[in-house]
Amino acid sequence: MNDSYLNFVNSPLGARVARSLGLPKPEVLRRYRADAPEFDGIVAVGAGPAPQLLDALADVVAHIGMTSVAHVSAGLWVPLANRHGLMTGRFEPADPATGSQARVRALVFDASGIESSAQLESLYTFFHDALRSLDKCGRIVVLGRPPEACANPRQWTAQRALEGVTRSLGKEARRGIAANLIYVSPGAESGIESTLRFFLSPRSAYVSGQVVRIGAAPGGIAQHFGQDFDWTQPLAGQRAVVTGAARGIGAAIANVLAAQGAHVIGIDIPSATDALDATLRQLGGTALALDIAAPETPAQIAAALDELGVDVFVHNAGITKDKTIAKMTEAAWRSVIDINLSAQERIDDALLEAGTLRDGGRIVCVSSISGIAGNMGQTNYAASKAGVIGRVQGMAPYLAARRITINAVAPGFIETQMTAKMPLALREAGRRMNSMSQGGQPADVAQTIAWLAHPGSAGVTGQVVRVCGQSLIGA
Amino acid sequence: MNDSYLNFVNSPLGARVARSLGLPKPEVLRRYRADAPEFDGIVAVGAGPAPQLLDALADVVAHIGMTSVAHVSAGLWVPLANRHGLMTGRFEPADPATGSQARVRALVFDASGIESSAQLESLYTFFHDALRSLDKCGRIVVLGRPPEACANPRQWTAQRALEGVTRSLGKEARRGIAANLIYVSPGAESGIESTLRFFLSPRSAYVSGQVVRIGAAPGGIAQHFGQDFDWTQPLAGQRAVVTGAARGIGAAIANVLAAQGAHVIGIDIPSATDALDATLRQLGGTALALDIAAPETPAQIAAALDELGVDVFVHNAGITKDKTIAKMTEAAWRSVIDINLSAQERIDDALLEAGTLRDGGRIVCVSSISGIAGNMGQTNYAASKAGVIGRVQGMAPYLAARRITINAVAPGFIETQMTAKMPLALREAGRRMNSMSQGGQPADVAQTIAWLAHPGSAGVTGQVVRVCGQSLIGA
Repeated sequence: MNDSYLNFVNSPLGARVARSLGLPKPEVLRRYRADAPEFDGIVAVGAGPAPQLLDALADVVAHIGMTSVAHVSAGLWVPLANRHGLMTGRFEPADPATGSQARVRALVFDASGIESSAQLESLYTFFHDALRSLDKCGRIVVLGRPPEACANPRQWTAQRALEGVTRSLGKEARRGIAANLIYVSPGAESGIESTLRFFLSPRSAYVSGQVVRIGAAPGGIAQHFGQDFDWTQPLAGQRAVVTGAARGIGAAIANVLAAQGAHVIGIDIPSATDALDATLRQLGGTALALDIAAPETPAQIAAALDELGVDVFVHNAGITKDKTIAKMTEAAWRSVIDINLSAQERIDDALLEAGTLRDGGRIVCVSSISGIAGNMGQTNYAASKAGVIGRVQGMAPYLAARRITINAVAPGFIETQMTAKMPLALREAGRRMNSMSQGGQPADVAQTIAWLAHPGSAGVTGQVVRVCGQSLIGA
Repeated sequence: MNDSYLNFVNSPLGARVARSLGLPKPEVLRRYRADAPEFDGIVAVGAGPAPQLLDALADVVAHIGMTSVAHVSAGLWVPLANRHGLMTGRFEPADPATGSQARVRALVFDASGIESSAQLESLYTFFHDALRSLDKCGRIVVLGRPPEACANPRQWTAQRALEGVTRSLGKEARRGIAANLIYVSPGAESGIESTLRFFLSPRSAYVSGQVVRIGAAPGGIAQHFGQDFDWTQPLAGQRAVVTGAARGIGAAIANVLAAQGAHVIGIDIPSATDALDATLRQLGGTALALDIAAPETPAQIAAALDELGVDVFVHNAGITKDKTIAKMTEAAWRSVIDINLSAQERIDDALLEAGTLRDGGRIVCVSSISGIAGNMGQTNYAASKAGVIGRVQGMAPYLAARRITINAVAPGFIETQMTAKMPLALREAGRRMNSMSQGGQPADVAQTIAWLAHPGSAGVTGQVVRVCGQSLIGA
């Protein structure tokens, strides 16, 4: 759990040693803290031709209280910003003579109007001018239109090209900077706030290189987020279940959901009852000691939740039993598939049939980078986690009629008791092989889940978001 | 171009040194050679419940003349194989006492009938028993149904889980073994032969960890491949254009397409005329010295091909101009986007409008692993190559009415003059960070393109196939 290399190179002596040896210097990531402002500093705005999302963006920037500057490519921004009562100015590229330049916290580029490959040049112009002005732990957000929603192949091509730009920016920006791409469906503009907030916030510290689609919310955005909506307590009055909540990532999820106002019901196996009780007691939540793999458990969960129902269900519980397939026992295959995948299916079926999970609810599943890329010695685990991706993609259209969203997070290397037990060389490789040159924290996974669980994320469904610091490893 | 480490560890002394130091030992891959049998040895067949593709599989196995053995999971295989006049027997797991066991060349598993996560256990049973029997440079092929075509979320989930199993098998099998997953749409069973042949053949030596979908061919499979079809000359009587054909991967593509019977028209820039002429003269092809970026070129290509038309167009030409975006010139951005992406669009528009590319034709584009994952210092190149992916996905539905397919290959680390100039450490990392522990050859890319260009590949469109030895790097 303790990354001593990261600590060392961020000490005065270590920084000198690392510099002289040419070693990577991972940043201490700026993460969300309740006692520090979530949003501050300057966002620099750029745009391609005919940008369509600046109005929605100005809305969000005004709400979160950041200052803005407009790059020359985003001439439309200044009058828009003025209309939204936003502090705004012009972005000034660095003076090469002095190198002096105001640092910005975020670069946001509206690429929604780009219709041809030649027009991609507007991204070059903006990031060429602005990338050096971005502060460490800053944010790059590119906004586009889903390629599959485009009117013709040329536009589809240009919008799809944004993935290559955004991922490359993440890989070259380094310094703890996260770069992500948000595709907003035509008509879904009003649904971007929860997602844009997340990607501009320190909550998304370890989420980079991701592509997220915001669709028109099934049944429309049910709630409106006016001035009286408390964005620090988006889950106030809601009930959220987290499986595997006793320790590690599950406990972090329970923590974050509770901090955002939810009453958390934590589930874990009976042998972990003490830890589960301790975790939930702290949060004023409810502990349910149940083995999710037991055949009677789905009905027991539904019964336990029946009176009050549930708004958010997080399928986090999972196990590994690693062996190459030739050496793996049938029991190891079976238990991993059953606990990590089949149990989720049985529980959802029971909750959906009984109506325990309310209409407009949220299901969030924990997949894994192994489910995307496969992994040596993890045929069982990778099958279960790839199956989770299939579950999310396959169920999303079925659940849309009930305005329920289902999404997955796929953690990369996260610092837990599990990874602390890995052999040193493997652990070091896992930590460094990503654009952040470090492992993530359980809270990084938890914050990502909280964004997906947010009532404002109604237009995000059927998706898989990696929490991996833009790991090199993929499929 | 010369991987001296691979040569060394495959020498008697080097093998001893590598073993004693625990160094990786990349296999010398078994590649296609015209003077060696393409298919020989034994294929072991396994199946999940209610397999639906064994009949189509038996057809292909009979055509290619491999012997088969049936694992206990594939009880249906024996009568089926007998009906197809196939040599067949029972697969016998290794005797743990002696370790003796017949080696097999390929493991093929029919997972098409799997409808639930619990039924995935049949994959465990087969690969647990059989993986050790697979010879080096062997093949693993898993056959399934496209998740998005499944009747319900449980089936979708289970079919999607196959990706995790197949990719993990590729990562743990090593020894030059390739593992791939083929999703066959219901009704597309008769269209699997060209694809199954490719993935069982030494032609696919460096293609691993891939997922390919075979759909019902637009307009049906136009040609039937009866006993008189010459599978060694599938492109006989066809005309194929290759851009960037003077050298490297382009020359290899020209070579392979010519070897498969096509008359090849090679295009390259005027400054490469000598090399282009030499390449094409050897193949009895036609050299066209044209700069694909010039505005008049599309019309010139269409005019040059007009009389006879063209059946296959391979967009291979591409350039890199690497720099971090802050240091990149506008000209470097523009030329990379224009040559690698916009020129393809202009040429296709001209050929499609003029009808030069015949109905039922094939377009194959060269993308890159950088277009999938992004890359430091390659915002321009990654944008162009991600755009190529968008082009393929966006144009496929438009071209279906004319029975034209469009696909992309995405090379990983390929041994060329370009990679030979890379700094040593970067080159070594690129070579080893994949399941084959080595770079690919230009011919590996060319063979993959030839499969996509095959008249039997009518059901494969809108897809991106990596030629990367299952590189660790992905998105």
